[in-house]
Amino acid sequence: MKAAVVTGGAGFIGSHMCRHLLADGWRVAALVRPGSLARLPAGVVPFEFTDDLGVLTEFLREFRPEIIFHLAAFYVTEHGPGDVDRLVRDNILFGAKVLEALARVGGHRLFLNAGTSWQNSGFDRPNVAPANLYAATKQAFEDLISYYAGGEDFSAVTLRLFDTYGENDKRPKLLNALVKALKTGARMELTPGEQEVDLVHVADVCRAFVQAYELLREGFGQGKELVYGLSSGRRLTVRGLVELLEKLTGRQLKAVWGGRPYRRREVMRLQTGYPALPGWRPVLELETGLLNVYRCYGEAGLDCASL
Amino acid sequence: MKAAVVTGGAGFIGSHMCRHLLADGWRVAALVRPGSLARLPAGVVPFEFTDDLGVLTEFLREFRPEIIFHLAAFYVTEHGPGDVDRLVRDNILFGAKVLEALARVGGHRLFLNAGTSWQNSGFDRPNVAPANLYAATKQAFEDLISYYAGGEDFSAVTLRLFDTYGENDKRPKLLNALVKALKTGARMELTPGEQEVDLVHVADVCRAFVQAYELLREGFGQGKELVYGLSSGRRLTVRGLVELLEKLTGRQLKAVWGGRPYRRREVMRLQTGYPALPGWRPVLELETGLLNVYRCYGEAGLDCASL
Repeated sequence: MKAAVVTGGAGFIGSHMCRHLLADGWRVAALVRPGSLARLPAGVVPFEFTDDLGVLTEFLREFRPEIIFHLAAFYVTEHGPGDVDRLVRDNILFGAKVLEALARVGGHRLFLNAGTSWQNSGFDRPNVAPANLYAATKQAFEDLISYYAGGEDFSAVTLRLFDTYGENDKRPKLLNALVKALKTGARMELTPGEQEVDLVHVADVCRAFVQAYELLREGFGQGKELVYGLSSGRRLTVRGLVELLEKLTGRQLKAVWGGRPYRRREVMRLQTGYPALPGWRPVLELETGLLNVYRCYGEAGLDCASL
Repeated sequence: MKAAVVTGGAGFIGSHMCRHLLADGWRVAALVRPGSLARLPAGVVPFEFTDDLGVLTEFLREFRPEIIFHLAAFYVTEHGPGDVDRLVRDNILFGAKVLEALARVGGHRLFLNAGTSWQNSGFDRPNVAPANLYAATKQAFEDLISYYAGGEDFSAVTLRLFDTYGENDKRPKLLNALVKALKTGARMELTPGEQEVDLVHVADVCRAFVQAYELLREGFGQGKELVYGLSSGRRLTVRGLVELLEKLTGRQLKAVWGGRPYRRREVMRLQTGYPALPGWRPVLELETGLLNVYRCYGEAGLDCASL
């Protein structure tokens, strides 16, 4: 029976990942902040991380995971001064402690990290700065991974995610707001809407993480960190997304285009240069996924059961 | 009268930098941890940073520095589990708060950062991992700089230092240990000694920081972070350094070559690909600098007055 540790197991992607692994026959432990236990999926072994590296190392030594899926993150699109501390602590320091504990456990260790396409570094437009401080902290964490992955018996991969979506998503995301406005008929102020989105369903994201694990297990990229992009292969502008939703649902969005400005440093064109994850492509068609989200919202708010 | 803020003003490079700027007619404030005030050079305006971003922002707004020289760092060559927390806090989080405070002050802001050649990324050998966790945290911090430098009215440069040396250096460095052993005639266990060193005198380092300030002021690299290497242009192996010291001093080191192993991930060949800082080259000859350090040690331990 394979074993995995998931960080951020109480979050949107993390909770899906836990269920995905459990359904696939894995033993799953979740590393969570004190207080997040209640939101863990059933069947997951909880481990409250209280900052003690020795205790965490001991836990990893006993649980013996094949891999750690590092999905915990603190996300904020435009940070305020009060967010700097938490962005660094949650997105860099917490992960550093997990890497350090893992380094102290014997045997060959695998580490999978969730990044964001907004890190923007090193591929087709290498000199573009991170789009926000969140993305910068994610990029910073990859440098710590590079250090650990440069040692012996340590393999790591970062999947840079574009946008993720799915049923039961309580995050304040554009798609969720659009679905709500379509359902309720509420007026919605939007930017001019020419920026690109690239949506991957959370079930496909989970499959990508497992595929990345398989690659590491087969010995891909030992001694350095691998980085792949997780693109759906299909990019729409926000306007195009709204048109698609209207077509699928037969409803008209009361959109006020240009009613709000673009964000400072809005990402208009997404990265195209990330290497694709070998052996993976999304299975769920965007049309099917969007309709599921739309229907699901109607049945039980945003709280309906996941696929 | 120009004004500068120096972080790490109580450290080796920082205290030299404060004196260098004062001698050059600058107003100088030092951002220090509570408790480090006593070690600041005379004439420096102290500012104790207690983690409050608002207070720091207000201080910067009132002091109106032309530039921040960010020289504070927590260094450890081979970290233990207990160092992870402090490496991230001191080398990433503290700097992030300085950047954030600076971003909140109006006007064009300049930021100068001290990095290390051991970050090893992006130049002639782009895929080499950071040599130690310290270097990884330095690299991680550069990603945060990239984010801030990508905004408006913000210019930043990182000088990646190789090895620094000078009189009055209390750091546990190889050169200081060699000088002590030569003076006292003590036996010294060394590695096989084939790794490279590249020594730049702290007075030349200070001149480089001021030169980098001049470049930023002239408008170099707006909207992105500039990175330069601070090489002496002269590389010796450790064996070569010992031979040079022996020749200069007329003494013989009681060296036990191979008496200790190389470090895990010892950096044998230094980076050669960093761009040189335009308009700067070291003035002090290595022979002169080494003899000064040697003589200085003899006069008053390692505590003699600096050049």
